[in-house]
Amino acid sequence: MTLVIDCHGHYTTAPEPHNQWREAQQAAFRSGAPVPPYPDISDDLIRDTIEKNQLRLVRERGADMTIFSPRASAMAHHVGDQEVSRAWAFHCNNLIARVVALYPETFVGVCQLPQSPGADLAASVEELHRCVEQLGFIGCNLNPDPGGGHFRHPPLTDPYWFPIYEAMCALDVPAMIHVSGSCNPGLHATGAYYIAADTIAFMQLLEGDLFARFPTLRFIIPHGGGAVPYHWGRYRGLADMLGKPALASHLMDNVYFDTCVYHQPGINLLAEVIETRNILFGSEMVGAVRGIDPQTGHYFDDTKRYVDALDIGDADRRAIFEGNARRVFPRLDARLKARGL
Amino acid sequence: MTLVIDCHGHYTTAPEPHNQWREAQQAAFRSGAPVPPYPDISDDLIRDTIEKNQLRLVRERGADMTIFSPRASAMAHHVGDQEVSRAWAFHCNNLIARVVALYPETFVGVCQLPQSPGADLAASVEELHRCVEQLGFIGCNLNPDPGGGHFRHPPLTDPYWFPIYEAMCALDVPAMIHVSGSCNPGLHATGAYYIAADTIAFMQLLEGDLFARFPTLRFIIPHGGGAVPYHWGRYRGLADMLGKPALASHLMDNVYFDTCVYHQPGINLLAEVIETRNILFGSEMVGAVRGIDPQTGHYFDDTKRYVDALDIGDADRRAIFEGNARRVFPRLDARLKARGL
Repeated sequence: MTLVIDCHGHYTTAPEPHNQWREAQQAAFRSGAPVPPYPDISDDLIRDTIEKNQLRLVRERGADMTIFSPRASAMAHHVGDQEVSRAWAFHCNNLIARVVALYPETFVGVCQLPQSPGADLAASVEELHRCVEQLGFIGCNLNPDPGGGHFRHPPLTDPYWFPIYEAMCALDVPAMIHVSGSCNPGLHATGAYYIAADTIAFMQLLEGDLFARFPTLRFIIPHGGGAVPYHWGRYRGLADMLGKPALASHLMDNVYFDTCVYHQPGINLLAEVIETRNILFGSEMVGAVRGIDPQTGHYFDDTKRYVDALDIGDADRRAIFEGNARRVFPRLDARLKARGL
Repeated sequence: MTLVIDCHGHYTTAPEPHNQWREAQQAAFRSGAPVPPYPDISDDLIRDTIEKNQLRLVRERGADMTIFSPRASAMAHHVGDQEVSRAWAFHCNNLIARVVALYPETFVGVCQLPQSPGADLAASVEELHRCVEQLGFIGCNLNPDPGGGHFRHPPLTDPYWFPIYEAMCALDVPAMIHVSGSCNPGLHATGAYYIAADTIAFMQLLEGDLFARFPTLRFIIPHGGGAVPYHWGRYRGLADMLGKPALASHLMDNVYFDTCVYHQPGINLLAEVIETRNILFGSEMVGAVRGIDPQTGHYFDDTKRYVDALDIGDADRRAIFEGNARRVFPRLDARLKARGL
């Protein structure tokens, strides 16, 4: 019996007082006023937001677990400064920890990092340690463009990023590479910015040699790897032109793609060109695309249906649903083993 | 008998004196010195660069024509100012006109526009008129991010762009949406920037309502539409979430994708999810990826092989190779009809 582990879920339905506090925090930053205290949020309110949404859908769609992190589009690292990001990440991650405490069999935590444009990654390293060591989280979301849509940060292969990679390796946790909301009027967050950033991140890794330095570093590139599988021939050819090893050894011991591709032909392509060992089941529900596909009568983001429909063997399907996630997230594997799973 | 028309070729092998003049022009801009005169370039030198490269490959691969424009990565609109871009576009386009004059049966011209960050589009409108009306060109390449990699220009639906759209409609010529070289160390030109910009452009169009205002405006989004076909479910779902009509009527009477996708599974996906009427054969050779795919023994960018291998009927294949290009480029159609084709 296979566990179905969704590697990509965000708390997009967080309680209103949490969101209101964020508004107040931003207003205080702009005006220079003191930040109001973070509100009391009852367990019942958290239960209400989860049971009507993610938990209901996990059950309806036949998944077992969601690797759960704060709402990606609300990380908004470009807003405020290091202290604003630090406090916001702290409260967002604590809220995830409360969801996990209420539903420990269904949710496991991945943290938001308090990145801030221009700041170094010391606060992010500290928060990662807190979340993994004190809150029991199993990974983090790393924003490759904390400026919010103008791609002004150094590529992911630059030493700027090394402190967080060192912490990730020391803690044996992976990162999902995930930008946040866009402050660029030309870049719609979920339709342009996310997919562009995924593609850009992969090419940054291709151009460099990061995994020679960090051989155990692991990244999940979400949204099916952006454009990468569709253009797999281009990337194989560019690796060749740039004098890099074949992608299988250059990147694919360390890079994984999720299945957040919202139609069957896309998932078919992903499974055709990308090795099974590099694909993790993910849906990003409740997230970017919430409607029902008139062509199928099912939710666009019910990606389990697409994986179920793949013409692959049981071992491959088990790897996509469970095995790969347990390999990429060893702390999840340990947790499941402790539960006899 | 079908003509095979490659809608996407750049003069990536332009004569060295042309490239050297560009270097000198940039140096003059930086130093404030006068720009040296543009060099004499012999027909023989042009023949040499074309016959060994594009013309040889067109023949070897069994194509008939290439819609030919200046090297995209060298447009570099972010370099210099309006006058620098104006002079560079002028000479690049004249060089294309000379190639077309030497090989009128094989090449037909598409122009580079003298865009410049911060400048309006008056010079681009003027150059488009010159190229179409005096040089016989049939379209243009429009750079949605002339800043070179930070996406600081307004979206393609913004009135900033309307003057060039008005000229395109008046002249009945389409634009290929094509960024140029990247001045962003995080964005590799052909591996990250091109594909990201293609995807971003489509989403900008999806968010707006441009074709209600310009019903005859036509765009080709190159490189197989960036990530769009792979994420076609996401875009259908986003159109629904944003209250837009279905993509077929909202965008796909005006937007076309080429076949610059360098492996068979990618082309298969493109043909599966995108209507035949929206697909134009293109290879971008000699261009982004110049090597041979070890999996097939053929050049990555020999995209005709992939289209030949598609499981589609003759009428569909004829549309991709010829019919759609003649519909999108009416001035090409007129030219071919005058030749009895």
